[in-house]
Amino acid sequence: MKEVGYFFDIKRVASLIKLLRARKVLIQLPEGLKRYAINIVKELEKFLPKGVIVFISGEKAYGACDIAFEEAKMLKADLIIHYGHTPRYYPGEDIPVLYISAFSNLTLSEKLCNKLVKVLNEANIKRVGVTAVIQHSPLHKELRSILRKHGFNVYIGRGYGVPDGIVIGCNYTSAMSINDLVDAHIIIAGGLFHGLGLRIATGKKVYVLDPYRDDIIDIEKEYRRVYALSISHILRASKAKVFGIIVCLKSGQFNIKTALKIKQRIVEHGRKAIILTMRDITWDKLLSFPSIEVFVNTGCPRLALDDRGVMKIPIIAPHELEFILERRDIAGYQMRI
Amino acid sequence: MKEVGYFFDIKRVASLIKLLRARKVLIQLPEGLKRYAINIVKELEKFLPKGVIVFISGEKAYGACDIAFEEAKMLKADLIIHYGHTPRYYPGEDIPVLYISAFSNLTLSEKLCNKLVKVLNEANIKRVGVTAVIQHSPLHKELRSILRKHGFNVYIGRGYGVPDGIVIGCNYTSAMSINDLVDAHIIIAGGLFHGLGLRIATGKKVYVLDPYRDDIIDIEKEYRRVYALSISHILRASKAKVFGIIVCLKSGQFNIKTALKIKQRIVEHGRKAIILTMRDITWDKLLSFPSIEVFVNTGCPRLALDDRGVMKIPIIAPHELEFILERRDIAGYQMRI
Repeated sequence: MKEVGYFFDIKRVASLIKLLRARKVLIQLPEGLKRYAINIVKELEKFLPKGVIVFISGEKAYGACDIAFEEAKMLKADLIIHYGHTPRYYPGEDIPVLYISAFSNLTLSEKLCNKLVKVLNEANIKRVGVTAVIQHSPLHKELRSILRKHGFNVYIGRGYGVPDGIVIGCNYTSAMSINDLVDAHIIIAGGLFHGLGLRIATGKKVYVLDPYRDDIIDIEKEYRRVYALSISHILRASKAKVFGIIVCLKSGQFNIKTALKIKQRIVEHGRKAIILTMRDITWDKLLSFPSIEVFVNTGCPRLALDDRGVMKIPIIAPHELEFILERRDIAGYQMRI
Repeated sequence: MKEVGYFFDIKRVASLIKLLRARKVLIQLPEGLKRYAINIVKELEKFLPKGVIVFISGEKAYGACDIAFEEAKMLKADLIIHYGHTPRYYPGEDIPVLYISAFSNLTLSEKLCNKLVKVLNEANIKRVGVTAVIQHSPLHKELRSILRKHGFNVYIGRGYGVPDGIVIGCNYTSAMSINDLVDAHIIIAGGLFHGLGLRIATGKKVYVLDPYRDDIIDIEKEYRRVYALSISHILRASKAKVFGIIVCLKSGQFNIKTALKIKQRIVEHGRKAIILTMRDITWDKLLSFPSIEVFVNTGCPRLALDDRGVMKIPIIAPHELEFILERRDIAGYQMRI
C-alpha cells in the first residue's frame, strides 16, 4: 500500500464555519478517514474562534445517505461537515450540510497505466467508459488523455443525482448513460465495492484501477461469489413463514412506504411479517430475532449484496421477493442495484 | 435453564393505544425479549383497529436511558411502548412513553430458598436487604416473608428515581438507603450484571438469587475480575497523550457539559482531546480511531466497568481521570457507579 494523504480543505472549512457563524459543528468522516479526526480538529481549531465546539461523529458513515441530522439536533449543532462522499441534497432539513470531497493525493503510476493499456489491448477492447469515486475524480482527465493517446475511444457519462463520471455505491447512472457505447468500464476506486456495483449495474466487463494497490482488479470472481450468495439466500428464504421487514433509519435510506406495501403482500400470501427499524443493520442486531426466518431490507440496496457473507440468516432485497412469494423461476434471477 | 414466560400485558397495551388514538406505535424490547417480537405484534394486532401500524425497534435497548425518541420522530410514531425496564421520566419530550414491566413468571423454588437460608446462616448473617430487578419484583414479598419466618431481619429500601426495593444498572439507591442497617444484600436477578452493580455501590456482601439458573451466585469473583480490569485500564491510560471523550447520544445518557469540562481539563494538562459522539459504544466503532490512546466515557457508568474485557484500548470513567492527569495514587482507587 502506498502512503496516502487526503485534502481536508481546512482553511476553507474554517472560513465557512466563521461565515455561517456556526458555534457547534459536527464532523462526519467515512471509516477510512476517521483516523485523521485528531489532526482535522487540531488544524481547524487553529483557525476558529475560541468558543466554537467541534464534535466528531463516532457513528459509521457509509455515504451521503447517512447524514447525521438526528445527532446534530441532539447536539444543537448548527452545521454538519460531511467528508468523503458525493453530495446529496436534503430539502426540508434545517441544518446545513457542508460536503467536502477529501480528494486523495494518489496518482496513477505509469506502470499502472501501461498495464491497463496492455490488458485492454489483449482483450481487444476499443471503447471504454471511465468513472471514478469522488476521492479520485481529479484523476479522470489524466486517464482519459492517456487512453486517448493510445487510441481508445473514451467516454465519460452524464450522472443523474451524481456528478458526471462519478459513481457511488448505489448510483451508476454516469456509467449507464454511456453503457451502449462501450465495450468495458474502467473505474478508479480502492477495493472491490464500487467496481462490483458497476459490474452489476452495467452488465459489462469492469476493470478496477486501484491507486492504493497500484494494480488492476478484475471484478468477475467477486461478482460470481456475490451472485452465488444471492441465489443461496433466495433459495433458503423460499420456504420462510416469518418475515422481518427492515426500515433503515438513515436519512437517505428511510423507506416506510415500501415496507408497508411489502408487509401487506407477505400477509396476503399467508405468511407472517413484522416491521423492524434499525440504523446500521448488523448481524448481531438481527441475531436478537431468532424467530424471523428471512429479512427483507428496504434500506441500502448494497447490504443484501455485499453483507450476505456475514449474515447467517437469509437477507433479501424487495425485488427478490417474487422468487419467494410467487415462486418465479430462479433461473431468471439477476442482481439489481 | 427453566422455561420462562413474560407478562406482556397485551390487552391493556391495546386499550391504551386505542385510548390515545395512536396510529403508529414503536415498540422497544430489551435484547432478551426481542425473541417475542413476532408474538407480541400478532397478539396486539388482534385487538387493534386495522390502520394502526406497529413497529419493532431493532436497535439495542439496554435501559430506560435509551428511549427511542429520535426513531419515533422519524417514523412519525405517536406512542413508544418500552418493555422490560424501570420507567424513567423525560420532561420536555413530546412523544408519550408507555412502560410495561414484562414481569417474569419464574418463581423462587423451595430448594433455592432453603439453600439461601443455609448460606446466610453459615455466613452468620442476620440482617439482609432485599432488592430485585423489575421483572422479578413480584417475588419481593414472598422472599421477605420466607426470610422473616426463618428469623432474619429483612429490609426493603426507599428508591430515589426507582421504585422501592428495585435496582437498575446505574441506580442502587433502594439498597443504599438501608445499607447501614444490613450485613448483606440479596438481589433477585438473572446473571451477574445487577449483582455486580449492587456490590460496587454498597461495598457489602451480595448474594444473587437467579431464578433462571435456580441458584445463588456469589458475585465476589466477578467483582475482583472487574476491579483488576479497571486498575489495568487506568494504569495503561496513565501515559496517554491523546484522549477521545465520548458523548453518548442516548436520551438518558447525553452529557455534553461533562464532556466539555473534561476536554478543557485534559487540554490544560497539555494533552490532546477530541469529543466523539456515539449511540451504542462498541469496540468496532472505537477501532476506527487508532490514534486515540484512551477513551473517556461520559455516558453509561456501567460501560467502563462491564465492557472493559472486550475493549482493547483503555476506556475510563470521568472520575478515574484524576489517576491519570493528577497521578493520584492508584492504591486509593475505588470503582464507582
